[in-house]
Amino acid sequence: MATLTVPAAVPPVAEDCEQLHKAFEGWGTNEKLIISILAHRDAAHRRAIRRAYAEAYGKELLRALGDEIHGKFERAVILWTLDPAERDAVLANEEAKKWHPGGRVLVEIACARTPAQLFAAKQAYHDRFKRSLEEDVAAHITGDFRKLLVPLVSAYRYDGPEVNTSLAHSEAKILHEKIHKKAYSDEEIIRILTTRSKAQLLATFNSYKDQFDHPINKDLKADPKDEFLATLRAIIRCFTCPDRYFEKILRLALGGMGTDEDDLTRVITTRAEVDLKLIKEAYQKRNSVTLERAVAKDTTRDYEDIILALLGAE
Amino acid sequence: MATLTVPAAVPPVAEDCEQLHKAFEGWGTNEKLIISILAHRDAAHRRAIRRAYAEAYGKELLRALGDEIHGKFERAVILWTLDPAERDAVLANEEAKKWHPGGRVLVEIACARTPAQLFAAKQAYHDRFKRSLEEDVAAHITGDFRKLLVPLVSAYRYDGPEVNTSLAHSEAKILHEKIHKKAYSDEEIIRILTTRSKAQLLATFNSYKDQFDHPINKDLKADPKDEFLATLRAIIRCFTCPDRYFEKILRLALGGMGTDEDDLTRVITTRAEVDLKLIKEAYQKRNSVTLERAVAKDTTRDYEDIILALLGAE
Repeated sequence: MATLTVPAAVPPVAEDCEQLHKAFEGWGTNEKLIISILAHRDAAHRRAIRRAYAEAYGKELLRALGDEIHGKFERAVILWTLDPAERDAVLANEEAKKWHPGGRVLVEIACARTPAQLFAAKQAYHDRFKRSLEEDVAAHITGDFRKLLVPLVSAYRYDGPEVNTSLAHSEAKILHEKIHKKAYSDEEIIRILTTRSKAQLLATFNSYKDQFDHPINKDLKADPKDEFLATLRAIIRCFTCPDRYFEKILRLALGGMGTDEDDLTRVITTRAEVDLKLIKEAYQKRNSVTLERAVAKDTTRDYEDIILALLGAE
Repeated sequence: MATLTVPAAVPPVAEDCEQLHKAFEGWGTNEKLIISILAHRDAAHRRAIRRAYAEAYGKELLRALGDEIHGKFERAVILWTLDPAERDAVLANEEAKKWHPGGRVLVEIACARTPAQLFAAKQAYHDRFKRSLEEDVAAHITGDFRKLLVPLVSAYRYDGPEVNTSLAHSEAKILHEKIHKKAYSDEEIIRILTTRSKAQLLATFNSYKDQFDHPINKDLKADPKDEFLATLRAIIRCFTCPDRYFEKILRLALGGMGTDEDDLTRVITTRAEVDLKLIKEAYQKRNSVTLERAVAKDTTRDYEDIILALLGAE
């Protein structure tokens, strides 16, 4: 379900490095060449290119890129070039440090990754920042959001398919009771959402619908302006329908006045090797226009080129 | 600092399996033979023996042991034979299910292991119980203990030596202020103890002593009967002086009326390959008697034999 396109015969790593080095040389930078290489290599290849480039030229590839390109194009190229776990660590660190109630990065990294991927991001966080993700989240965020987000990024959830249906039934009841009382930050709601496995949570949400006749997220829409409620809904959607969750992020990033390049870049770079094809389908279905066309309308130049390349546009 | 003694030339795994199989055969069981093998093999060897035994005899070694031996001797042999991560998973699961405020297993697994070892225990927990440690702790424990123990077992702490001294200074102040107000379960105390790295916490406790003239644990002794305070002290001691922490568990297990075999077995089996030599030294220093002698006085027969073997007694 990835959109990343890789040539049938990928050139040798040494040749990719040479071409990238050439793209940086002389007057100006050959952005098209950079895109034609990096936007068409999978994570393992990009890692090999970074290693070989540093050995061949005595300079980190990311640093060389940072010297040559700028702004939102630079951010997209660098985020994309990073390993998925490292990229998640960088994004999570940015959000933890300048957190605001509308932030969604921590939710996505905790809930739209597998438990093993979340753990890999936490290891990358240690390596890069010499601290833990959980201590930064706990130190920078306060109140109810801290109560929710610290366990959300901390738990190592079970990842298997086993489901306890009677537990799903009783925990759906607990969720309903607390939501009914508007006790949205109740520790039972937080306990269930932050510790149960994805399979168990899906069973619980299904039981909720069966018992109470409407989806849990509808009951969490009582106050559309409440960002804590919005965060709970985001958590649930990242588990139940990540493609539609990300479609909405893209819809809001592209629609309305101005474009939110941070959101656009994040969703494209984090999903291009995962499920961006599904997200594209959801986008077209919901907006009656292809995601490629919407991106082309809202972006320009090299930034447009790399986003479209990652989207798998011809 | 381990007490485990392994022969200079360890027999081939197949021979160990044959000997164990022989120990189970015929009338009665040869407990001495079981001890002479399993109590003198390191974790990697024991793992190899388990694998080879199951292949050779079509029966899990642990099941064969369970059919032959019983009671506290069985428990000691089986806990010891398990992989360290699996053993931690089993112990943590037992404590989570029948938790009481005096329980120390979760604290030990969270604070007297490296972050990587704690994570390995959580992986073993998934494999064995098809659930996560954090969800079981969260589901079975309530109130202030839940607020403390869930993040304690969840966090993946940074494990490096880097210390932020000004942070240590300011967080020591926060701890002092909250303790002074008897706000022992305050979320700031919990945040600091459950997320900061071991090196950072040691710096914070040192700063506490420097700023306020006595160790933090002295201030946490306000009410000696308060089990929440005792748990906080146990957390701090597992970080600052695990040898003396475990010495005290052994002292209480062996002293007074009756012997607490659960505590004795747990400490011996979990530390024999780690730091039991240091714990023995601390024991002798504190009790003016060797740990071997105290164990010999309080235990009998096969159980005594395996505990003494793991203690490295001649």
